[in-house]
Amino acid sequence: MNKKMRVGVLISGRGSNLQALIKACEAHDFPAEIVVVVSNTPDAQGLERARRADIPCVVVDHRDYKNRAAFDAEMTWALEDAKVELVCLAGFMRLLSETFVEHWWDKLINIHPSLLPAFKGLGVQRRAIESGARFSGCTVHYVRHEMDVGPIITQAVVPIHNADDVGALSKRILEQEHRIYPMAVRWIAEQRVRVEGPRVIVSGYGPPENVLLNPAPK
Amino acid sequence: MNKKMRVGVLISGRGSNLQALIKACEAHDFPAEIVVVVSNTPDAQGLERARRADIPCVVVDHRDYKNRAAFDAEMTWALEDAKVELVCLAGFMRLLSETFVEHWWDKLINIHPSLLPAFKGLGVQRRAIESGARFSGCTVHYVRHEMDVGPIITQAVVPIHNADDVGALSKRILEQEHRIYPMAVRWIAEQRVRVEGPRVIVSGYGPPENVLLNPAPK
Repeated sequence: MNKKMRVGVLISGRGSNLQALIKACEAHDFPAEIVVVVSNTPDAQGLERARRADIPCVVVDHRDYKNRAAFDAEMTWALEDAKVELVCLAGFMRLLSETFVEHWWDKLINIHPSLLPAFKGLGVQRRAIESGARFSGCTVHYVRHEMDVGPIITQAVVPIHNADDVGALSKRILEQEHRIYPMAVRWIAEQRVRVEGPRVIVSGYGPPENVLLNPAPK
Repeated sequence: MNKKMRVGVLISGRGSNLQALIKACEAHDFPAEIVVVVSNTPDAQGLERARRADIPCVVVDHRDYKNRAAFDAEMTWALEDAKVELVCLAGFMRLLSETFVEHWWDKLINIHPSLLPAFKGLGVQRRAIESGARFSGCTVHYVRHEMDVGPIITQAVVPIHNADDVGALSKRILEQEHRIYPMAVRWIAEQRVRVEGPRVIVSGYGPPENVLLNPAPK
């Protein structure tokens, strides 16, 4: 078997997307492995998930660093030390410096719970509901300097229901996050993913054939 | 059979959505009929489509009016004269005055070739492609004062393909426009549609059960 791609995951909280990645990596034929989990808070629940899976954990507590540059340099050191080839943000709640983003250019991906470019930033499920939109979803994208902007690798669309509150919509989106994040990591490990300016080509996979309407006609 | 809802359609150009509405109205059980087509230019191709279907046409040439208020008042007069109950914008390229929008409040709908609130305004297919987004679509919504903002009645999602140019994506979206615009008119005529603040409830129709991923997993 070929050597697996070495993945580092950055978390700040419960790390449900980390859990999805851990689960995917447990399959023997998955072409990537998580070699380090870095948290910026010592009490992130995700650390416990990582430890249970015997994944090395590093806490880089942002409160211990005098500025973002020093904090980001320490994270890069931890990732480089583990010979990481791809960095996955999974609910990591700190803004990253330009230096960090440039260091990991095209090797740093994020998952966001909206159909970017709609609804960047925080509170996006609530904002999607309040907009009256009929669809939302999630996006895996390469990280660039501007928040929630960057070449999109893959997206999933889910309908918004009339009765949705933030919890119900978040849950429906999260189920798809847990599908598409490991899928994107797999495709990158298989060297199928190519960035072309603002767009991403995934070789060997095409668009779906169907469309979705909401409300759905009978 | 119940009385049909009386619809007026405003156009500026070829009127392909007008054509879709004309076709829908030809079905004997369709609960709406187009009673007038208003164009702001005398050479709109859509006028020819309307005449072929024996629908009365009115040209209200914006160049003949000294300001938007006078132009809009003439359009309202033409629509009221035809006892219109619902006004559909179909590629109508003039901004409407606050007075017009208020006069037809909750009786004035538009179709827009994007998944609002993403990509308001013009050139939206090109902008969707350039954003790298994996999905676009179209939206039928009630018209409010701000352009391409207003309670959303229905949306359709279509995938964006790697090879798409503006023409290919526009065509894929237009096919769905031609499905959802008559559908929205039908639901309004059937009195299924209720505006609740920024959201719209369509009674008797629910969300689709499936999701869409792009690229699609095998």
